[in-house]
Amino acid sequence: MIVVLKKLAADEQVDNVIKHLEDYGFAIHKSTGEEQIIIGAIGIQPDFDTRKIKILDGVSAVYKVTEQSRLASREYKKENTLIKIGNTSLGSNEIVTIAGPCAVESEEQIMAIAKIVKDAGAKILRGGAFKPRTSPYSFQGLGEEGLKLLKQAGDEFELAVITEIMDPGRVELIYKYTDIFQLGSRNMQNFPLLRELGRVDKPVMIKRGMAATIDDWLMAAEYILASGNEKVFLCERGIRTFETSTRNTFDLSAIPVIQQRSHLPVFADPSHATGIRDKVIPMARAAVAAGADGLMIEVHNNPAAAMSDGPQALLPSQFNELMDQVRKIAEVIGRKA
Amino acid sequence: MIVVLKKLAADEQVDNVIKHLEDYGFAIHKSTGEEQIIIGAIGIQPDFDTRKIKILDGVSAVYKVTEQSRLASREYKKENTLIKIGNTSLGSNEIVTIAGPCAVESEEQIMAIAKIVKDAGAKILRGGAFKPRTSPYSFQGLGEEGLKLLKQAGDEFELAVITEIMDPGRVELIYKYTDIFQLGSRNMQNFPLLRELGRVDKPVMIKRGMAATIDDWLMAAEYILASGNEKVFLCERGIRTFETSTRNTFDLSAIPVIQQRSHLPVFADPSHATGIRDKVIPMARAAVAAGADGLMIEVHNNPAAAMSDGPQALLPSQFNELMDQVRKIAEVIGRKA
Amino acid sequence: MIVVLKKLAADEQVDNVIKHLEDYGFAIHKSTGEEQIIIGAIGIQPDFDTRKIKILDGVSAVYKVTEQSRLASREYKKENTLIKIGNTSLGSNEIVTIAGPCAVESEEQIMAIAKIVKDAGAKILRGGAFKPRTSPYSFQGLGEEGLKLLKQAGDEFELAVITEIMDPGRVELIYKYTDIFQLGSRNMQNFPLLRELGRVDKPVMIKRGMAATIDDWLMAAEYILASGNEKVFLCERGIRTFETSTRNTFDLSAIPVIQQRSHLPVFADPSHATGIRDKVIPMARAAVAAGADGLMIEVHNNPAAAMSDGPQALLPSQFNELMDQVRKIAEVIGRKA
Amino acid sequence: MIVVLKKLAADEQVDNVIKHLEDYGFAIHKSTGEEQIIIGAIGIQPDFDTRKIKILDGVSAVYKVTEQSRLASREYKKENTLIKIGNTSLGSNEIVTIAGPCAVESEEQIMAIAKIVKDAGAKILRGGAFKPRTSPYSFQGLGEEGLKLLKQAGDEFELAVITEIMDPGRVELIYKYTDIFQLGSRNMQNFPLLRELGRVDKPVMIKRGMAATIDDWLMAAEYILASGNEKVFLCERGIRTFETSTRNTFDLSAIPVIQQRSHLPVFADPSHATGIRDKVIPMARAAVAAGADGLMIEVHNNPAAAMSDGPQALLPSQFNELMDQVRKIAEVIGRKA
Repeated sequence: MIVVLKKLAADEQVDNVIKHLEDYGFAIHKSTGEEQIIIGAIGIQPDFDTRKIKILDGVSAVYKVTEQSRLASREYKKENTLIKIGNTSLGSNEIVTIAGPCAVESEEQIMAIAKIVKDAGAKILRGGAFKPRTSPYSFQGLGEEGLKLLKQAGDEFELAVITEIMDPGRVELIYKYTDIFQLGSRNMQNFPLLRELGRVDKPVMIKRGMAATIDDWLMAAEYILASGNEKVFLCERGIRTFETSTRNTFDLSAIPVIQQRSHLPVFADPSHATGIRDKVIPMARAAVAAGADGLMIEVHNNPAAAMSDGPQALLPSQFNELMDQVRKIAEVIGRKA
Repeated sequence: MIVVLKKLAADEQVDNVIKHLEDYGFAIHKSTGEEQIIIGAIGIQPDFDTRKIKILDGVSAVYKVTEQSRLASREYKKENTLIKIGNTSLGSNEIVTIAGPCAVESEEQIMAIAKIVKDAGAKILRGGAFKPRTSPYSFQGLGEEGLKLLKQAGDEFELAVITEIMDPGRVELIYKYTDIFQLGSRNMQNFPLLRELGRVDKPVMIKRGMAATIDDWLMAAEYILASGNEKVFLCERGIRTFETSTRNTFDLSAIPVIQQRSHLPVFADPSHATGIRDKVIPMARAAVAAGADGLMIEVHNNPAAAMSDGPQALLPSQFNELMDQVRKIAEVIGRKA
Repeated sequence: MIVVLKKLAADEQVDNVIKHLEDYGFAIHKSTGEEQIIIGAIGIQPDFDTRKIKILDGVSAVYKVTEQSRLASREYKKENTLIKIGNTSLGSNEIVTIAGPCAVESEEQIMAIAKIVKDAGAKILRGGAFKPRTSPYSFQGLGEEGLKLLKQAGDEFELAVITEIMDPGRVELIYKYTDIFQLGSRNMQNFPLLRELGRVDKPVMIKRGMAATIDDWLMAAEYILASGNEKVFLCERGIRTFETSTRNTFDLSAIPVIQQRSHLPVFADPSHATGIRDKVIPMARAAVAAGADGLMIEVHNNPAAAMSDGPQALLPSQFNELMDQVRKIAEVIGRKA
Repeated sequence: MIVVLKKLAADEQVDNVIKHLEDYGFAIHKSTGEEQIIIGAIGIQPDFDTRKIKILDGVSAVYKVTEQSRLASREYKKENTLIKIGNTSLGSNEIVTIAGPCAVESEEQIMAIAKIVKDAGAKILRGGAFKPRTSPYSFQGLGEEGLKLLKQAGDEFELAVITEIMDPGRVELIYKYTDIFQLGSRNMQNFPLLRELGRVDKPVMIKRGMAATIDDWLMAAEYILASGNEKVFLCERGIRTFETSTRNTFDLSAIPVIQQRSHLPVFADPSHATGIRDKVIPMARAAVAAGADGLMIEVHNNPAAAMSDGPQALLPSQFNELMDQVRKIAEVIGRKA
């Protein structure tokens, strides 16, 4: 931690700051410059609340110099984390696609879509069974029946499956059916749930919260890592800003930023970011060009009849065309898809 | 719902839009203007996904004209909701103050603070037992022991108590000790938890999520109301914006907006909004002047030693002075405190 | 400037960073901690681009410790800046109100409104002659004719006048008629205009830009101060966020933040912040309670017929009532109005 | 315009709303639904302030259905606007690259960089002569000398040139030297300047303001178009959000949104959006994959010595590699570069 004193700080104020820092267990390095005194407070206290120092008289600014997230940081682990799924690995040179409907609606629907996405090259099948919905009056998913159908489709077409978990009380139930847990945006800081997911031995995909900085996002990963589960990957899905032409603002720059700061794989979900089908294709291509380790795409065999989010689901022919472009762009940047 | 067609929309496109609307169960009113055709789609489907129409060829824009939240709206219920707490009511002419420490730390601490806030005029005692913390390495609260101490302090000083709930699995436990459930910002869209809180017969305070629009916030209230619990009130605590001089951006204009749109009481929490003690006092006064039905303020008998959020807690003398100013400002606007 | 090195930084990387800093003219203090090396780079270069160091190999983070704005800072000048206007001073214990129409529309209109606001206690009359309008098809103001009418009304009712300047080429013209220059949100970083306003001897009010941090805002003031004009004051008028229920998000916490960091007076404009008349009154009260040195309020004798922004203008009776409440709240916090 | 009345609106309120609309010159279509009355107000008044109706008693919501921008809209002009520059056209199938230093610093510098970017395939040379700088103490550009050097470099290497204009008083001067005017983010709503640029016969590139919605941005274009200059194109360069890991948040989704709503070409500037060199390359690729009509990239022969924005400038070798990848991605999506 670095403490910058005010130019006009009195000697007793400086002494008081030093005394507080020492009481909190830090070793002190004091640098006296032309105009200002700067104090380096040495010691590892990743959770120290810097405001405790900031409010002392004579203090101008306080900077925390250690990253809050330790286990998630690239400094802790230099090599990419690889998460094995079927015959590929998330975080490897291969760009992996997760595809499927927003919600599992029926056996017929999920089987038809599973075939479509498998044929087009997806490796993982998505499908919600317990849906987070802004309105209490909306379709809330098929529940366990949806989980069963998702697993059945995954088994039939040799696709791993991913589904969302909202409630720490349902980890055990969902564990029986899914290969990957999805933690949604609205639960990114649901700490009891994060702890529970730290205790399972299956991968967890953390979607970025709508108001989450990259630091907050890595701290959510830290919760799971610190609880013992190392199979964590991230998924950018848009943040909330003043621009309302798209459902959210897709922050693709977060992808190279995460890759520099963390060893965890990072995916992108253009379906939720944009919210409208005809924007999904260019933004999916953009995500791959920006370096995403994978994509999550909504696909529906009959979007007009979808029970949720139909307008952002790609038609099968569009998904085919997209996968073709993704493969070519992957090649341009020395990867495969 | 209102559908605005493009100026250049072909006749068959218009017909196709009308057919879709009728298939979805709407009655149609078509207005042909100088430049554009506008279609009014009449029928109550609060959860209809307007993007289903927006993606049709020839459509320029779609507007939903019914408020999503029904039970929370001022149109549904004209008079203020009053929530009886002790010898006062939230939502009445009286401005009510909730005060206390961020977290319950010990019997000595909570008893001392309870006495301070009672003497200064607070009606409700706050204190966390299960704390949501960004870092897994931070103090997470005393758990059930904290709940017991909070209740003990409330009983001793005749204060109602409020504490945060994060996990639907803990509703029963917390119910035993608290008078009011606090739903934190990070759980504002924790839908399983919202449903559980809709089933209890004690009041729930919903803090605004950091990325929540006023619509989202009222929809969170709607979840609880629709599940049967009418004792809901709201608490503004700052939203996330580009400005980082304060912990969050305190959106005080939300107070008159909510009061126009909803019958639910609305409080304000300047401690979390600003994050620094010396900004809490002016912003607490401002919240009252803006019309808030109550305040939530962090107070600590020894902030420097607080286990969490000490730097934003008021000292006892500051709290006394604030309460005095609050009473006088309440009078200026024809209320009491 | 403080440079934090990566834990894994190689010796030659550390040496290279030090060499760069020395080449840029800094003196070096190196602190070696348990895990990390921290370098204090001493020397005053307020405009140094810290990214030059951030991109060097081995660097983890860089912090600038000197405030960018010098002349505007409280460290440079401890006492409040007082700007004399008529028989009062902005920045003194007195809360000063600027009021009037959005735009000067006619002699009859501006004389009628001037009388209303004078009688209610305002000290300064506002009125636009050259209007910044989002649409090229909107009413753009009366130009010089408007300036003349504004001055005439000010003279008649002994009110100082303020009007907006958008173009450095019009400083001379507007100087002839106005007592105070208003720099609008959209021109907060119009640097040629800032420089011109630094050369005049009349006060300048800088409205906060919609995307301006408090730092950016103080740097705009710095431009004028550095060019020689010390009569600068600020006006908070809302920032752009995701919330669209109000025209902008009124960041009232900026008021105590500015007062701590700068010696310049700070006003608040609830009319532009909220954009709707019935929200102006509570938010004007809130601004005073938060400590604003003054208010800027739109008032119109016939808002329904106003040529711009009528819906946010107060009716004369509302303005009277507001001024009465403002006086009482000022008293509560030991000020007068 | 569509006016939605409250469910509880009294008959006289409805009549009053209709009277107001008629007085403002609108024709009325009234639709009475199960729960609500909806009024369609027909008539073209693109600049009508809808708040005039919103504040009437009994009104629940008002929607403007005509796009504010007319000349800039795809409805006004179906085909892409093509802007001829040398032997190519902006807005055509060819992706055009603008490259060069942030600021012109010397003859040697600009000639060296011009050669580098020409050899790599850029068609347009950038270079600032009058620089907008947040701090008054920063390097402000070489002024007219910089313009001369820029033109000299453009002539020598057969590159069109672009430079920024900040002041309406300098249009004539800059016109002598530049092929394209650049309107910077901070001046996007500098209306006197927009009008001046509407009177010249050279292309204008409008960078998006940091707080500008897509609507605001198109209205800035409308100012220039309405003043008679049809050669307008846009450039996305990031918006201001809560995320500070990058200089701004690069809103690449704006590219397909603009292309659907407007006929104007749209470029992207990853250098200013990200602010750090190693993020520029992935984000430039992403912009092309998202469909941008061109790129604006900062390149410097010696970034460490650059007088401004060196840390975001690409090295010559990096720019070469990027141009190679851009060409290949262009091909994947059926374009050329």
